[in-house]
Amino acid sequence: MEINNKIGNENKIRDSKENNNKNNGSKYNSINSNSNSKNTNKDTNDNNKDNNIININKNTFENNILNAYLESYSGTRKGDKKEEVDLIGEYILNAKSIVIATNNLKKFQILKDILLEKVYKDSNGSEIKIFKINIPTEVSDLTRMPVLSKGLMAVDTSNADIVIARGRLGVPGSGSMLLIMDNKGRILTGYTSPPSVIHKKNIEDSVRDELIGALKRIGVV
Amino acid sequence: MEINNKIGNENKIRDSKENNNKNNGSKYNSINSNSNSKNTNKDTNDNNKDNNIININKNTFENNILNAYLESYSGTRKGDKKEEVDLIGEYILNAKSIVIATNNLKKFQILKDILLEKVYKDSNGSEIKIFKINIPTEVSDLTRMPVLSKGLMAVDTSNADIVIARGRLGVPGSGSMLLIMDNKGRILTGYTSPPSVIHKKNIEDSVRDELIGALKRIGVV
Repeated sequence: MEINNKIGNENKIRDSKENNNKNNGSKYNSINSNSNSKNTNKDTNDNNKDNNIININKNTFENNILNAYLESYSGTRKGDKKEEVDLIGEYILNAKSIVIATNNLKKFQILKDILLEKVYKDSNGSEIKIFKINIPTEVSDLTRMPVLSKGLMAVDTSNADIVIARGRLGVPGSGSMLLIMDNKGRILTGYTSPPSVIHKKNIEDSVRDELIGALKRIGVV
Repeated sequence: MEINNKIGNENKIRDSKENNNKNNGSKYNSINSNSNSKNTNKDTNDNNKDNNIININKNTFENNILNAYLESYSGTRKGDKKEEVDLIGEYILNAKSIVIATNNLKKFQILKDILLEKVYKDSNGSEIKIFKINIPTEVSDLTRMPVLSKGLMAVDTSNADIVIARGRLGVPGSGSMLLIMDNKGRILTGYTSPPSVIHKKNIEDSVRDELIGALKRIGVV
């Protein structure tokens, strides 16, 4: 899976600023608002001449992150958009390789089974590769957000479209969290569980509920 | 509220390692396991002579974080303990000042009302001070985990026992999260919401559910 960055985007932002001068109120427009400006192939080719500027394909996380920031900056952001949520789902569904950031065989098997059963059920099983990492991850327990650290350890020591990490949310006693990240370590979705002494669920149910919860909240299952 | 660090802890860890040599299997004991070793006042006084070592009171996040790490390191960690969850609850209930990391008056008022109604109902209202921050937080939308960045902005620009932050979990479309942090920015609890285009709840209900969810999972409400 590829996230394509192409030359030309900063120009779009610059255009956006200029457009805005004729506009009412907001300091910046989103990049997408340039769709009615001259953004033809010729235009893109012209932009390509300048190697110092970056173009970002419309339907990428990069584009969505920039747009969302510009909207926040101008005070026009109104929460997540359907197309942003859809892109996350698409990315997850199109993944060809997944790393689960655990060296615990039992947790790995539970998560793998749910993925094959609920998410990649239409693939014939050979198309999707699901691995676990074989490195000790306990040092993550000494970091501010163990689940995040564990996920990034997997991102940095393996090469997969998706990393799924499960670990403590914060300080001991703060319960657990599951995070799904892309190949750069960006957070796509997540879900929390209460500490096991509170919920009294067994680990299998807890892990299962977190993965399904994380997928459900973005409409993937 | 104070988190007391006192001189002497590293010695305890050292003791722990030495004890372990006589012990079966695990490389490190937890600090608490020293309770049966000679840890008298005299011992502590002796330790105090060496200013290079740190002692940590038993019932603190520092102690719990160290212990949990040593347990993880030795492979003996079995998930969050009741006393760890209880300490988080105690910390929250004993807070005297809370900063809510938003400059949105509506969200601030919702969160403040829930706190006074559900958590600090026994205080006469004058004992607990609840503020909002007056800085623009939109730059957090350009960071990897907007909710975390927003919370840390509040920790770093204000002085309160607790910071409550609500923001995007990850990339645009990833839905929102609420985090409760201590005065150092450590994560005490949190809770996620689906993107609003998915759950169709209004912002008030969503914010309310997140705060109550975050408190409920650690048994505070």
